[in-house]
Amino acid sequence: MALGISGRSAILIASSRGLGRACAESLAREGVHVVINGRTEADVLRTCDELRDAYGITASPVVGDATTPDVHDALLAACPQPDIVLLNGEGPPPTAFGDIDAARWADALQRTMVSPLLFVQRVIDGMQQRRFGRIVAISSAMVKSPNPLMSMSHGPRLGLAGVLKGLSKSAVAHNVTINTILPERFDTGRQQQMAQLVMRFKGISYEEARAEQVASIKAGRLGRPGEFGDTFAFVCSAQAGYMSGQSIQLDGGSYEGVF
Amino acid sequence: MALGISGRSAILIASSRGLGRACAESLAREGVHVVINGRTEADVLRTCDELRDAYGITASPVVGDATTPDVHDALLAACPQPDIVLLNGEGPPPTAFGDIDAARWADALQRTMVSPLLFVQRVIDGMQQRRFGRIVAISSAMVKSPNPLMSMSHGPRLGLAGVLKGLSKSAVAHNVTINTILPERFDTGRQQQMAQLVMRFKGISYEEARAEQVASIKAGRLGRPGEFGDTFAFVCSAQAGYMSGQSIQLDGGSYEGVF
Amino acid sequence: MALGISGRSAILIASSRGLGRACAESLAREGVHVVINGRTEADVLRTCDELRDAYGITASPVVGDATTPDVHDALLAACPQPDIVLLNGEGPPPTAFGDIDAARWADALQRTMVSPLLFVQRVIDGMQQRRFGRIVAISSAMVKSPNPLMSMSHGPRLGLAGVLKGLSKSAVAHNVTINTILPERFDTGRQQQMAQLVMRFKGISYEEARAEQVASIKAGRLGRPGEFGDTFAFVCSAQAGYMSGQSIQLDGGSYEGVF
Amino acid sequence: MALGISGRSAILIASSRGLGRACAESLAREGVHVVINGRTEADVLRTCDELRDAYGITASPVVGDATTPDVHDALLAACPQPDIVLLNGEGPPPTAFGDIDAARWADALQRTMVSPLLFVQRVIDGMQQRRFGRIVAISSAMVKSPNPLMSMSHGPRLGLAGVLKGLSKSAVAHNVTINTILPERFDTGRQQQMAQLVMRFKGISYEEARAEQVASIKAGRLGRPGEFGDTFAFVCSAQAGYMSGQSIQLDGGSYEGVF
Repeated sequence: MALGISGRSAILIASSRGLGRACAESLAREGVHVVINGRTEADVLRTCDELRDAYGITASPVVGDATTPDVHDALLAACPQPDIVLLNGEGPPPTAFGDIDAARWADALQRTMVSPLLFVQRVIDGMQQRRFGRIVAISSAMVKSPNPLMSMSHGPRLGLAGVLKGLSKSAVAHNVTINTILPERFDTGRQQQMAQLVMRFKGISYEEARAEQVASIKAGRLGRPGEFGDTFAFVCSAQAGYMSGQSIQLDGGSYEGVF
Repeated sequence: MALGISGRSAILIASSRGLGRACAESLAREGVHVVINGRTEADVLRTCDELRDAYGITASPVVGDATTPDVHDALLAACPQPDIVLLNGEGPPPTAFGDIDAARWADALQRTMVSPLLFVQRVIDGMQQRRFGRIVAISSAMVKSPNPLMSMSHGPRLGLAGVLKGLSKSAVAHNVTINTILPERFDTGRQQQMAQLVMRFKGISYEEARAEQVASIKAGRLGRPGEFGDTFAFVCSAQAGYMSGQSIQLDGGSYEGVF
Repeated sequence: MALGISGRSAILIASSRGLGRACAESLAREGVHVVINGRTEADVLRTCDELRDAYGITASPVVGDATTPDVHDALLAACPQPDIVLLNGEGPPPTAFGDIDAARWADALQRTMVSPLLFVQRVIDGMQQRRFGRIVAISSAMVKSPNPLMSMSHGPRLGLAGVLKGLSKSAVAHNVTINTILPERFDTGRQQQMAQLVMRFKGISYEEARAEQVASIKAGRLGRPGEFGDTFAFVCSAQAGYMSGQSIQLDGGSYEGVF
Repeated sequence: MALGISGRSAILIASSRGLGRACAESLAREGVHVVINGRTEADVLRTCDELRDAYGITASPVVGDATTPDVHDALLAACPQPDIVLLNGEGPPPTAFGDIDAARWADALQRTMVSPLLFVQRVIDGMQQRRFGRIVAISSAMVKSPNPLMSMSHGPRLGLAGVLKGLSKSAVAHNVTINTILPERFDTGRQQQMAQLVMRFKGISYEEARAEQVASIKAGRLGRPGEFGDTFAFVCSAQAGYMSGQSIQLDGGSYEGVF
């Protein structure tokens, strides 16, 4: 299926590893030029090299924590007129509600909600004027099913989802879509780290911790990053311009609710 | 993007025109063999001819109203082991709630909810055993935003959505996904008919009636059938196996709700 | 708190036992005249006697299965101008999806969805003209969280919820509200029967089966029928006229979804 | 209807006017001792006097902006062991998305989301130990239907709703419920101010601006504060202990979505 986006340009925040990297790869394969971002220079450069070599597109590295205005500047310097933007970032650690003080809240909100919105501010008008834009946020399945141990994750992410939904209502008239993808348990480094946490916390083996992850997913397996990347690429396609304001769960069918 | 379904087989209920036809075309283009169904023989045969000629796949015609067991038999005779099933059908006419008697309810429910479920019964076990299945229902954006004049549409469709969601929870472990797509105002014969109804009802011109349709969609245009077909094809792809139980709105971003 | 409905009249379908009876009691206590309905004459008559004695209101018995037009006639003969209507009825038994044939679907839909809607048809215009109406349906928490073994329950109930929501949009302008309450695991005869089913099915004791019920509820206990009845009474109050189209879960906080 | 909370104690944030005041009045009428809070001393003192006189309960004034730790301290000094807490506060002004800088986001989030959560932190453990608690947040109908001009309102409020929902899952086992009420267009000073804004902005009369407000509500009228207060009181009742994690819309039936 031709996605109609060959030659377009994308800024992908937090794309040197995991789901972000998979998104970059799926876009690059479709001929999209990409800006790759991450905090570890070696990861960013390697990703750029690999995508350039494999797909012949332009891949520009921007190293740094993309929750800061400086890195926003650098991303836009690397690609002043992006057609596609991926909003992504590391989730906060599990924290008991009673341990979240004002400073932790402020930090989690700045990183997970405010910073992506400030970046959207800088790109949305241009997208609307050029009459093409695809903004996609990677969120978490927990936004629709909040878990009391993950308040710092689903709180800011729900706020982000709501603001993006509001914006989507006016942007779609200009062929700028804004959608959110809600993953649960993909086979990335994050789940390996989580398994190690659980292993130590419960005193079980790594294999047992991994088996618990699998058991929590109705599909009976973890998601493959390429499945995520290809869904993202479809949402960014030319023919997805009539779909906006959606929250698409990629969770192995695990969400309980009818809507 | 390779969808990984070339050579697979699909039964597409109500696929000789409109959105169903667009779904058939997007699958055929990906190398999927299709069973085309509709009530008008000429439409069915022409669709088969055109898809066969354009894409070199097998296209088998089954003429008849697919809400009957006989046509279910014929569909399964034409394709005993479908990998993909499209559940589709004509929506009921707008009817004031006070005019819906027991017989009309029974008929609308049989056609729009029970009949698709009986067809699912006949295919889901085989899909699970063969460890691949993609079941997709075309519903309506109204299921999430009920309109008092369309009770006979959103009532049965909500019932269908709920039962399919329940089924999706057990099917996904066998790589059988069940999803629903909720269109609003695609540029098909249905919207032309609706415009003619409104034209007569309000005493306005056809162009005015069409303009009202466009004005009701936040994207500022009607959807293109190919946009629907390609979304359907993606949902049927090999790499969409981790997405199930979803209700995806294709409505030009018009739905008001955050979820 | 004064509910402002003393002297009003209510038809309560399936109100001789369980949650329906609790609803009747909470209304009677507020001075509402009630029509009590059930299939077992002794239960209906005893309920009428008890409510009359306790609260000094009029309690009229209508014996019979309220999914039939004859019983609808009798209910309206007993109370031609109801201010309040409770839609209630026995849920269908758990049934594997593969075992639900066309006849079972038709029966479940007629009983659980169509029959209540036909009764609403007969009362809603009068309520609107008299500018007071409170229609409340008892549904099930499963409508928002479908369980694959309960298709015959959540399918029809979701259809009902959708049609009622659509109707609520026009009715509210006439001070007629339409709401749904979604219970999960109240301490009624129904849960005792379910425990006996589970006891036999799993080969465990009745106490163990009851403990499983409790464990499935986040509140750590079953609901008390009076809690349900009082919520119903509040929804029927004069001051609840600004609340309509709501689905209120009474489930011990068990629903996972944010909305 | 007896609510079973006579003699209990409530802290009501932002309760000297409008909906908060209505909540205080409905509780006081049921015999609940109240802490009244607001930024204008005269309003706070008058409210205390009036409630004390009318209902014979204890009414303690706490003057100040309740988004600060100092006022949290004062509230808890006035009532160290609250049974009931109302989370309320002034909504942020309508602001175009492009005008919301990092400082405005931080301020809106601190006031509308973080500050209420920090107050919940201080009361929830005690409520759980005492095995009774009713926490209710006044939010806005917009959280389920985001409006692009109100990002600073629905963003933080959605975040708050999500965190409260997560917390509700563990609190309910201790008879502590956490619910949210979502008002739209009640006849308070806030709507009068909004009408004046619209009057100037659109160059229409105040009466026309008020008529527009009414026209936006399906009930054909604004809500009455007492309707809100009584719903709040019911949610705080003893018999509402099985209802938690709910978002109840009080919007004249205006919300479009089925759930």
